[in-house]
Formats: sequence, structure tokens, C-alpha cells
Amino acid sequence: MQLSQRITGITGGGSDGWDVFYKARRMIAEGENVIELTIGEHDIRTDPVILAAMDRSARGGHTGYAMVPGTQALRESVAARIQDRTGVPTTFENILITPGGQAALFAAHAATCNTGDRALYIDPYYATYPGTIRGIGAEPVVVRTHASDAFQPRAEDIAAEASKGAASLLINSPNNPTGTVYSAETLEGIAEVCREHDLWLISDEVYDTQVWEGEHISPRSLPNMADRTLVVGSMSKSHAMTGSRVGWICGPKEVISHLINLATHTTYGVPGFIQDAAAFAIDQGPDLEDGVAAPFRRRREIAREILADQNTVGLIPAQGAMYLMLDVRATGLSGEAFANSLLDTHKIATMPGESFGTAAHGHVRVAMTVDDERFAKALKTLVDHAQTLAK
Amino acid sequence: MQLSQRITGITGGGSDGWDVFYKARRMIAEGENVIELTIGEHDIRTDPVILAAMDRSARGGHTGYAMVPGTQALRESVAARIQDRTGVPTTFENILITPGGQAALFAAHAATCNTGDRALYIDPYYATYPGTIRGIGAEPVVVRTHASDAFQPRAEDIAAEASKGAASLLINSPNNPTGTVYSAETLEGIAEVCREHDLWLISDEVYDTQVWEGEHISPRSLPNMADRTLVVGSMSKSHAMTGSRVGWICGPKEVISHLINLATHTTYGVPGFIQDAAAFAIDQGPDLEDGVAAPFRRRREIAREILADQNTVGLIPAQGAMYLMLDVRATGLSGEAFANSLLDTHKIATMPGESFGTAAHGHVRVAMTVDDERFAKALKTLVDHAQTLAK
Ligand SMILES: Cc1ncc(COP(=O)(O)O)c(C=O)c1O
Ligand SMILES: Cc1ncc(COP(=O)(O)O)c(C=O)c1O
Repeated sequence: MQLSQRITGITGGGSDGWDVFYKARRMIAEGENVIELTIGEHDIRTDPVILAAMDRSARGGHTGYAMVPGTQALRESVAARIQDRTGVPTTFENILITPGGQAALFAAHAATCNTGDRALYIDPYYATYPGTIRGIGAEPVVVRTHASDAFQPRAEDIAAEASKGAASLLINSPNNPTGTVYSAETLEGIAEVCREHDLWLISDEVYDTQVWEGEHISPRSLPNMADRTLVVGSMSKSHAMTGSRVGWICGPKEVISHLINLATHTTYGVPGFIQDAAAFAIDQGPDLEDGVAAPFRRRREIAREILADQNTVGLIPAQGAMYLMLDVRATGLSGEAFANSLLDTHKIATMPGESFGTAAHGHVRVAMTVDDERFAKALKTLVDHAQTLAK
Repeated sequence: MQLSQRITGITGGGSDGWDVFYKARRMIAEGENVIELTIGEHDIRTDPVILAAMDRSARGGHTGYAMVPGTQALRESVAARIQDRTGVPTTFENILITPGGQAALFAAHAATCNTGDRALYIDPYYATYPGTIRGIGAEPVVVRTHASDAFQPRAEDIAAEASKGAASLLINSPNNPTGTVYSAETLEGIAEVCREHDLWLISDEVYDTQVWEGEHISPRSLPNMADRTLVVGSMSKSHAMTGSRVGWICGPKEVISHLINLATHTTYGVPGFIQDAAAFAIDQGPDLEDGVAAPFRRRREIAREILADQNTVGLIPAQGAMYLMLDVRATGLSGEAFANSLLDTHKIATMPGESFGTAAHGHVRVAMTVDDERFAKALKTLVDHAQTLAK
């Protein structure tokens, strides 16, 4: 009687650079006044108009089992939003509603990878990626990017791993943790590798409303890619609905029909009243989404001004998402050592680049998730601290 | 580029006896007045006091990511409820909150079965069981019960399969679809097989409040069983919260800690406002639960009266859960043929026993989920119909 390898191996073992995060949480629990720039969660709550729609639906009686694929209304709203943004014809049959983007990431890998298959993903990466792949019994295979490329992945590096055999490639643009928005050239290169090596492309687009520079391109809109692309989306970041756990997969109709079978056995659908709230929120259109994104856009400008005055801390490239990736190598410290020292000295918590793989070593990730004033102050302190260390 | 075997094989193929169900749904969609006695869902909605607690929590700001293992309050409420009911010491560390009982069933198998492992379950069974096992890449192995035993499983039949090697055994009492409540003897036999053959026991107790005769015993309370038992629970049936998707796994602390890692990668927690509503509901105590169960208790009495007057349709054994399993073999028809003929002739929809495996052939399952008057009328019609056919 043992636990499965799948579950005992899911975290992969080893130190993962999250010690700073847990230390900060302990300090807060002990009553210290720590500024947390660690987690990808808005400093605002879900809009009360959305919560009112949820309550209306629940009291209106939508409290029984909802259809497993999602309500017709939400599937249609999501499809229309995707079609509007990408120009790719999309109907409700291309959509499975999931309890959050994370569940969509899990389902997309479960659908495309057999046990033991190699599943590619890009370093630096969102913390759950390798565990998600291990969780379905596949082998996570990392493709490193480089700070000198502003963390845009290189097609030839992906091809090198794909040529050894792989089932899928997971990408994420706008990117967590780097803030990079993949260029048209990057995405065309990726698409070509996928077609050439017959890979499924899993495109995590949960930050699609947070684009400060350039343009978000969904690879599903590239030639011959709609058939092999599964897009992961979520209400978490675009509508400040992290706690509602509602997201989707958009993909080929036949794949969605299989994914519905999987959903029947893994989650059995998403609460109807949450889906009604989500459909209401999407149907408000881009204004609501822009409002939710606005604080991050503003804080990114604040950061650029603060960082413009100095050369010690590098900012790369902050084109999108709610994070800044800061190069602190001039201090001579690792990202982890710098983050620890900043926390100890100034009670400012950031995430070491090493928490997200190996490519972002010597960096720290700053989440722009405290109010403008505290954010500006914290960032100035961070710069001062780096300059003191670099001397 | 192919879909995984896991997902393409999840339904197992073959006819599954759900044709009657879909035919009934089509008739309803076409405006026909069908009495549906098919699905395990209350005819009442979630209590407005529970929905008010949910709205209070959401508007109070509990809309961000909740802790992945569950809120402290709900984990403690669930633990206290389990300890009260079983006498087994239980703390929040024994509890993982999941988005529904189905997600708990999936996670419990993912934790205990490696790819290719044999996972045992009992026939007749709840429809998702074999697909849940296939969905994690294990092999579903059925242990048949017999109508003549009132569908109590026999320890020697389980042992026969266990001795060929197996990782887990899934049981369900009170049982869907049979209404059987496992006796102390049955459960002791099962416990012995699990200890002898080193099996994990996954005990689906989602109907634990619906016991009309005898006593619900949780196998976790049997000697040396707490270490190898994972109990699956849910708010769906006990609190008429099917659509809220909230349930749990109760098990050994170390297993729960691994299950938390799995949850981080599969679902990333359950909405905080739903957990607050669930904790509120549990903290109301057994009165609320009894109120939710009362209609089924009442209708079971109605059914017993109607069925007492005749010998054509047999009732076995209706000790618990919201279903009646009716033996219609005296009509000379299969369960499926009988259900079809009842639907065609009288617009009453029931589930063929064949939808739940092979053991309940020649039976139909009746869900007691319409109001007393229509229920009584439908059941009388069913009996008349059987008598006409048996002549
Ligand atoms: C890149 C990325 N993908 C997916 C998610 C998961 O989002 P959710 O499960 O809340 O939809 C996150 C959350 O931080 C993320 O950063
Ligand atoms: C035996 C059994 N287990 C589990 C479930 C799943 O319940 P839920 O996922 O709604 O908690 C059901 C639902 O019908 C059931 O009958």
C-alpha cells in the first residue's frame, strides 16, 4: 500500500526558491509590516456588480448541477470574446468551461500526453507547470530562454528538444514571470516547430488583457495552427476573479468533446451561478477588463520612471502581465540572496528568479500588486538597496 | 499528434444503457410532459440561508485565491462533523476540500494507483466510476454483487480479484444505484480483505445522511483501517448543494499533504465564498441535513406502501440514498426494455439497471426526486405497467 509515483513525485523535490515567500508570510503572521510583491493577485476585489449577478443567479435557482461542458451562455460569451480578439471563427463547441486556468492546464496535458511522453515548456515558467505535467504522468522537459533575448524563446532550442520526441509544447504570453509578450516572429517560429514536429501547442493566455507594449497574438490564429492548439484562458486575471475558479480551454471541436468526457470524471462541471457571473462579466465588454488592468499599466509607468535614473537594476522587458522581472546581477548576488537581503533589511518581499527555473537566475520578480504609493516607495528602496550592494 | 489513450479511452466504449435517459431529455425538449425519475438531484434548491452566507462572504471580500487545502474554517467543520459521526479522532489536517465529490474520487485514485494498476470497484456502480479509474490511467476491475444478496458485496469475491494484484478498492454505502446500506458484517469482511491484500480503501460516503434503515458505518472507524482509508464526502446530497461543487477527502495526514500538492496542480482550490457557505451549512448541524433528506424518507414510505400490495415488482432493499432499485424480471424484459416501454407508453423515465454495470440487469432505478403526489402516481403506473407485461 503505497502512494502513486505520480503524486509523490509531483513537486519534483529539491529547493525551489520559495523560501523567501514563506519567510515573508511568517513575518506577516508575526505582525511585521512586510510589503508583499510576490503573488499574482490584484489588490482589488471582484467587482460588486459581478457578485450581484452571481447572487441573482443563485437565488434565481441556478444551484443544481450545471451542464458539464459549461452553460450555453458562458460557452457562447467566451467563444465570441475569442473570435472578436483573434478573428478565428469560434463557437461554443470549441469551448470547455473549467474550474480555473490551472484545471485547464491540467486537462490540456491530460488530453495530449500519454504516460511517459515528453512535454515541453519554457523556462522561466509559472510555478505549477512542471508539476502539472508530472501530475498526469508525463515527463516535463524544459527549454531555456535567455535574459539577453528578453526571454523570447528561440525556435531552434524548442526544435532541438522536439526532435528527440515530444507530445506537446506549453507556452505563456504575456508571460509570467518575465512580463515578455511573444513577438510575431517568436510565435511564427514556434508554430513552425509545432507543425514540423507534430506537437500539440498549449497556449496559456490568462494574461491576455495585460499588454502594455506590442500586441498579444494568439497562436491559434496562425496558419494551420487552430487544429493543434489548445488555448487556456481564465477569468482570474482579466476580471479579478481569482477566487471564483472559472476558466476555459478553447480548441478543436473533437478535442473539446473528449475533454468533456474527462471533465465528467475529474470535476463534473463548474457552479452555474459562477458561470452566470462570468458570462455577465464578459458581456460587460473590454471596458471592465481595461479597468482591471489599469493599475498594472500605471504602476509599470511608475517603475519605468524610477528605473530610468540608474544602471544597477535592469528591467526586462515588462511588455505585459502584472510583473516586472528585474536583473540584479550587478549586485553580485543571486536572485535568491538579493531577495533575502531585501526582505531582511527592508521588509520588502519579492520572488527570486530562481523560483521560476534556471533561466532567470540573478533576477527578482516584482508583482505590481500594492497601491501606487507603496509600490513606488518599495521600488525606490529596492534600487537603493541594489546600489548599496553593488558598491 | 494524437489524443492520449487516457482521454480517448475514458468512456470505455460500448452501449451504456443511457439511451433511455437521452430519449427522455429529447422528449422534454420537444415539449412532452415526461416524469423524470432518472437523476440524483433534489427537487428543492439550495437553502436561501446558505446562499445568503455565500453572498455575505463574497461581498465581504473573500473573492481572492483561497488556500489550496481549503479554508481553515471549513476543514475544521468537516473534521468535526466526521468525528461526531464516527468517533474517530479527526482534525483539519485529515481533510482536503475539493470541488465536489467527483473531484475527490478522481484525486483519491490518482493518489493511490499507478498507471496500469488494477483498481477494484463494485457492480452495480455510480456511472462515473470506471471512467474515473481510466482517467488516471489505471485499470478498472469490477466485482459483481447479486440481487439475491440485496447487492451486499461478498468479501470472497473481492478477495478473488485482490489476490490477482490491485492497488485500491472503491466502495459506496449508502449505495447508488441500489439503495443498499452496507452491513457491519459486509464492512468487516471488506476491511479484512483490504488489510490482507494491502489495498487502499476508497469509501464514497456522499449519501451518509440518507439512511432509512440500519446504520451508516464508515469503514474508517474499523480497526486499523484509518491508515488505509480515504473517505469521499460532498455537500451535494446532504445539503442540496449539487451545483456548488464542494466536497472533501478525509484520510491520513501524510496522504492529505500529498493530495494538497495534487490539488495545487489540478484545481488550485475551491472558491472561498463557497467554502464559507459550506462551513455555514455544516455548522447548522443535523437539523438542516435531516430536512434535506426528509422528502426521500417520506417517498420511500410511499413506495413501500404501493409495492406492498403486489408481487410483480420487487424492491431491493431501499435502506438508504435517494433511489429505489426495482426488480422487473417478472415482466420477462430486461431493465432497458422495460424502461423504454414505460417511457414510450406512460412518459415515465427511469434508469435501466444495465446503466450501472451488469449486476442489476432486469432492474430499473427510480430516483425519488419529484414531489410526493407525482411520485406516487408514477410508481403506481409503473407497477400497473409491469403487471400488464407480466400477464
Ligand atoms: C501563467 C499562469 N497561468 C495560469 C495561472 C492560473 O490561473 P487560474 O487557475 O487562477 O485561472 C496563473 C496564475 O497565477 C498564471 O500566472
Ligand atoms: C455515489 C456517488 N458518488 C459521488 C457523486 C458525485 O457527487 P458530487 O460530485 O456532486 O459531490 C454522486 C453523484 O451523483 C454519486 O451518486
